[in-house]
Amino acid sequence: MRIILVGFGVVGRSFAELVLSESKKLSQGFGLKPKIVGIVDSKGSALSPDGIDIMKALNSKKANGTLEALAPVYRKGIGGVEAIREVECEVVIESTPTELSKGEPGLSHLRTAMKEGRHVICTNKGPLALAMPALIELAHHNEVMFKFSGTVGGGTPVLDFAKKCLEGSEIKSISGILNGTSNYILSKMAADGSMMQDVLAEAQKLGYAEADPTYDIGGFDTACKLVITSNYILGSSLSIKDLEIKGITGITGKDVEAAKAKGNTIKLIGRMEKKAKVSPEEIPMTHPLNVSGTFNAISFDTHPAGQITLVGKGAGGKETASSVIRDLIEIRRTFAR
Amino acid sequence: MRIILVGFGVVGRSFAELVLSESKKLSQGFGLKPKIVGIVDSKGSALSPDGIDIMKALNSKKANGTLEALAPVYRKGIGGVEAIREVECEVVIESTPTELSKGEPGLSHLRTAMKEGRHVICTNKGPLALAMPALIELAHHNEVMFKFSGTVGGGTPVLDFAKKCLEGSEIKSISGILNGTSNYILSKMAADGSMMQDVLAEAQKLGYAEADPTYDIGGFDTACKLVITSNYILGSSLSIKDLEIKGITGITGKDVEAAKAKGNTIKLIGRMEKKAKVSPEEIPMTHPLNVSGTFNAISFDTHPAGQITLVGKGAGGKETASSVIRDLIEIRRTFAR
Repeated sequence: MRIILVGFGVVGRSFAELVLSESKKLSQGFGLKPKIVGIVDSKGSALSPDGIDIMKALNSKKANGTLEALAPVYRKGIGGVEAIREVECEVVIESTPTELSKGEPGLSHLRTAMKEGRHVICTNKGPLALAMPALIELAHHNEVMFKFSGTVGGGTPVLDFAKKCLEGSEIKSISGILNGTSNYILSKMAADGSMMQDVLAEAQKLGYAEADPTYDIGGFDTACKLVITSNYILGSSLSIKDLEIKGITGITGKDVEAAKAKGNTIKLIGRMEKKAKVSPEEIPMTHPLNVSGTFNAISFDTHPAGQITLVGKGAGGKETASSVIRDLIEIRRTFAR
Repeated sequence: MRIILVGFGVVGRSFAELVLSESKKLSQGFGLKPKIVGIVDSKGSALSPDGIDIMKALNSKKANGTLEALAPVYRKGIGGVEAIREVECEVVIESTPTELSKGEPGLSHLRTAMKEGRHVICTNKGPLALAMPALIELAHHNEVMFKFSGTVGGGTPVLDFAKKCLEGSEIKSISGILNGTSNYILSKMAADGSMMQDVLAEAQKLGYAEADPTYDIGGFDTACKLVITSNYILGSSLSIKDLEIKGITGITGKDVEAAKAKGNTIKLIGRMEKKAKVSPEEIPMTHPLNVSGTFNAISFDTHPAGQITLVGKGAGGKETASSVIRDLIEIRRTFAR
């Protein structure tokens, strides 16, 4: 199966590493033999119909942050759209960073890939948060598969779970802790009375939070994931612009203490009932959504099976890459029929 | 789809109620039109190839604890084995009570149904805890489907989740809180310092615990579920007799306090790593398995997706009946191919 990897950040590299380390299992267990024929990073593209030396690509990126060691296979200035058009493949994996004003360059990558008849696996939340219904329609029109398991829950199969395992049960509402950074901060404030700015600084040092933390603690990451989950599972047609979004920046130590005194804890929750919104909520300490640290959790209120909650690491390179592998297995299986 | 219901306790009756209340959804959504042609209770059987009046059966059972109001369709003394042999059907649903010395009468019902070429849905843990590999072999040999989603997790799709959603990930170990009664008792002891005998008495009053609580608090229910989960998901060939089983009866208030002082809590855990065992364990308060009340939780330690935990109501008539419905949908889908 020929693959173009658009984006060679943490997720793209973790995927490449898994392709190397798990190759025997993938081949024997699932008949899956991934051949990476293109790697696109922010500066150019390595393209080779015969397959790219993955180890060399990983080492080059590690050593000097670029793929230049792969020249002449690597050419500066060749972007994702060009790369997808130039080299034949079965699957395009889009893992460039999430961007929420126009969803670019991810959106153009996805559209180009679908129009070229490529199956698409996407871990980039931006295009889906902005234009998910149109993208699903485009995939349908071009008769390609469009998978995005890694956008919600990292390696925790949130979307698959609801689709494959809750059949016959009605899902009445969805609520979740979908951002590990915010949850780390709130958990730490609740556990030892730390101030938000101190925990944030610590989280940045540990790599749990970005230098500009707005995307995480402002609730936008949660909102993206809620849009994707709700559209996929409940069949809504939301864009992130439809959501009421409130982050955790206003939460003080006093709020945290007041909640605690009532046996509650404050969590940043994305919730879809009649409408979708993101805001800090007080939940009982004993609530299944009360997970600590960087864990994510999502609860489905179902009839007649009651409340069912899935908890796992919501991010991480190799975790998200494991979702990409699952998507690949599903594409391969559908292919094989 | 013609069904014989063997066992008309809480689960059997909840299933019958769902068939009535959800009939439109099942028919329109899944092409599923269940027709109950047999109901077997502990005293006799109601059998009718044209279908049994479900409402009448439910009312009769409610009014006087028997199905006698259905006479002459109801005949005293006709047991499950006879009933399965007498009336044609596509699916036998076995929901008689769990019995752990010989697995009877469930085991004979399952064997008879399979030999007669009927698909089987089982919510009774006894036969599986004792003879799961042989039963799976028998189902295979007779080319019938054998589903038992309701035996673990009640309405929470534990078994399906691991099979359908964790593909491509290696499951290194499984650990779970699989018995609601024990968890209710331990949670209450930890929350307010109650004594075990007082909480147990209260749980019996609330209907969370049986008059003879040995099966639950002695760890046997947890052991049954661990055997089923491990055999189904990890491919082991365990019987409950292979397990080391220790219940919660020895846990004192002092133990609970000592754990608390270390930031831990005591839970009854079924664990399968190299070998399978059931015993009380101390886990950190912040651990995803730390669920309270009657909740169940099961954690899969996976590579490379990390620890993934599923939390839900582990028992209950309508919850477990919803698992039976999911199994029926799957049988119907496989049929339809």
